[in-house]
Amino acid sequence: MTSPRTPRRPSPTLPSHSVDGARLWFRLQDLARHGATRSGGVNRPAFSAADQAARRTVTGWAQEAGLAVSGDAAGNLFLKLEGLEPDAKPVLTGAYLDTQPAGGKYAGSFGVVAALEALQAVQAMGRPASRPLIAAIWANGEGSRFSPGYAGSEAFAGLLSLATMHAVTDGAGISCRDALASTLAAETDIARIGLGFACSAYVEAHLEQGPMLEQRGSTIGAVTALQGVRTCQVRVFGEASHAGTTPRHRRRDALKAAMRIIAALDSFYASPDIGFAVGQLSVEPNAPSVIARQVTFVVDIRHPDTTTLQRLGDTVRLICESEKGPCRLEIQALVDKPAITFPADIARRIEQAAAALSLPHMPILSLAGHDARSLVKTCPTGIIFIPCRDGLSHNEAEAIEPGHAHAGAQVLADVLWDLANST
Amino acid sequence: MTSPRTPRRPSPTLPSHSVDGARLWFRLQDLARHGATRSGGVNRPAFSAADQAARRTVTGWAQEAGLAVSGDAAGNLFLKLEGLEPDAKPVLTGAYLDTQPAGGKYAGSFGVVAALEALQAVQAMGRPASRPLIAAIWANGEGSRFSPGYAGSEAFAGLLSLATMHAVTDGAGISCRDALASTLAAETDIARIGLGFACSAYVEAHLEQGPMLEQRGSTIGAVTALQGVRTCQVRVFGEASHAGTTPRHRRRDALKAAMRIIAALDSFYASPDIGFAVGQLSVEPNAPSVIARQVTFVVDIRHPDTTTLQRLGDTVRLICESEKGPCRLEIQALVDKPAITFPADIARRIEQAAAALSLPHMPILSLAGHDARSLVKTCPTGIIFIPCRDGLSHNEAEAIEPGHAHAGAQVLADVLWDLANST
Repeated sequence: MTSPRTPRRPSPTLPSHSVDGARLWFRLQDLARHGATRSGGVNRPAFSAADQAARRTVTGWAQEAGLAVSGDAAGNLFLKLEGLEPDAKPVLTGAYLDTQPAGGKYAGSFGVVAALEALQAVQAMGRPASRPLIAAIWANGEGSRFSPGYAGSEAFAGLLSLATMHAVTDGAGISCRDALASTLAAETDIARIGLGFACSAYVEAHLEQGPMLEQRGSTIGAVTALQGVRTCQVRVFGEASHAGTTPRHRRRDALKAAMRIIAALDSFYASPDIGFAVGQLSVEPNAPSVIARQVTFVVDIRHPDTTTLQRLGDTVRLICESEKGPCRLEIQALVDKPAITFPADIARRIEQAAAALSLPHMPILSLAGHDARSLVKTCPTGIIFIPCRDGLSHNEAEAIEPGHAHAGAQVLADVLWDLANST
Repeated sequence: MTSPRTPRRPSPTLPSHSVDGARLWFRLQDLARHGATRSGGVNRPAFSAADQAARRTVTGWAQEAGLAVSGDAAGNLFLKLEGLEPDAKPVLTGAYLDTQPAGGKYAGSFGVVAALEALQAVQAMGRPASRPLIAAIWANGEGSRFSPGYAGSEAFAGLLSLATMHAVTDGAGISCRDALASTLAAETDIARIGLGFACSAYVEAHLEQGPMLEQRGSTIGAVTALQGVRTCQVRVFGEASHAGTTPRHRRRDALKAAMRIIAALDSFYASPDIGFAVGQLSVEPNAPSVIARQVTFVVDIRHPDTTTLQRLGDTVRLICESEKGPCRLEIQALVDKPAITFPADIARRIEQAAAALSLPHMPILSLAGHDARSLVKTCPTGIIFIPCRDGLSHNEAEAIEPGHAHAGAQVLADVLWDLANST
């Protein structure tokens, strides 16, 4: 394998030849203006003004390039490059534009910009692929405003009803229905199509959001599987009382119980192959001189083996109950998604495309969730990873190399071309 | 000692004879309408609309009773009953009307209503005391909206400048200056007096907010001392990263570090004579799939001995530093108040008044803070405690017995009368 810095000479018979790395990079930086934070990151909640502006920016680029733009009732947008056989099932790619509250410039956005770049590269070849190519902008990928995420792609794939998607409210009490409606109302110039359509394949590009590619010096990861994830909300109920006057033995301190529970969970799920985290926790009434009446937190458990994940997730209640002390508990399951194995054929095509471009590549397990999970039962599906610096993501300092972004878009373009010309 | 249920026959030569227990109880319930919560408690932040309404209600009762009402620039209100010697230094009593976010009906309010009742009982005797009697409604006693509390009484006693009081902002970013200004603007019919005046003594009535009186079957506590309190805000800085993909050994998890720190503090300060609590904690960015970038919490440490308290408080940094792991720390001192011993003379007068009314009484240490702390260097000061059910306070279910409230107001009236007729 050559170093990722070595100049590559893509075959002029492949779209990777026409991928414009400078345009790709400019667009990534330009998109990051929408919801830019003072610390150099992005805060772009789904269906916010910043998200609407980012959607408008990308559809503007697509329209300028002559791609047909349409959208569905779930807020997904589609940028279409016609094929020689307009009625053939299209090959789909895509990603999302919303971010974590203190997110970076690249997760999601890279996949969207790379998808558009790949379509433009195919377009630049001057001869269409057999199948149409469609770049999807999936609505509400992160789910940090309207939880859980991947709502747009799940609605597209028939896994989530619009009614369920609508019913979610954000922290300010605004319903997803209203936020989505105001987004769609700002896009009445975009043709509306029905929700969901048949595809021949789906391949998306994304940051790894972990350190493996960087550690191995690999530029391209061909994702073989997604680990499963289970999350639940634990509510610990204590009793509010005066922090100065209530003797220890009479306290029912929900924060103390929550800390005991989280420490026990952290210790039980300490094996390196288990993903365990608590990132969200809130205290009521949250006053310095009042013992906490209620603490609510979300437990996130991940594992590449679905059976193991089920067993791990089922243990949460047991541990919570054993550590709750004088408090009362309620546990509500939020997300329960099995591990996914992608078709070997797609991962093989990704590795072949990378190899043809002399890019260091490797098979990789995705530890994060992706819209590809929604599509996997619909059509052959895969994901192309590029490295991110220090494996850091969901952070304002998230960073990628321009050369890696270019390489990722090249592989995506060639894989889409390959799939769009396959039977 | 007789049981608190035994009918008492106050001497008609003392104002306790004229204390109207039914009126006192009605007023307590009536006040609780302002900021009433669905769970039967009260949420009445300082200078809020509910606080303004409660202030208006009490000043209305005072005006109806013919008391002179005035106010100062710190938002304190004063209800005055003239004495035979109008120029003599007045005897002061008082309490506050603001509450914890999920507070009860009685902490603060009881002291205000008992103070008014005591003045009306003296008034009902038909012969004034030598000194004027003044019931103060101290602004921002709880400090749950504008931290720290006792701001009104501290400003009155010259311990806090108006500029410092003004500069505090609430959780919504509203300054205390603006909230106070809007409160004063709603009270332009109330005579404005200068900030602070000399008093001959200060005695307030309050709930114990702890279980001692109830456990001992005592109706009246004569507070001998206040324990000292030190609070500090600890900020733990980690690194936001993807909860699913960031390996454990690469995480800088601010929530995990905060939990380790709090557990270590809790274990170090576990002795029953030490007050230790963490009731306020917030997480950023507080998303289920993001490792916490920052956790901020407030440590509250209390002890009856000032030297011990200093030593305990000084250890916080050491423990935080030893448990911070890969995170960074900032610690900011908030409150540092020494233990206070009240003059024995005032506590003795309280016990004598209780004994004369055949009320079970005892000397008691206050584990909570009080406005009396602000006044203690200004004049001889004391506090009268009554029991609260299960020692529970700072809770919507906070409850007191009508008989105890009546008894507390009787003792307050007789002690004020006693002090107002002393040289």
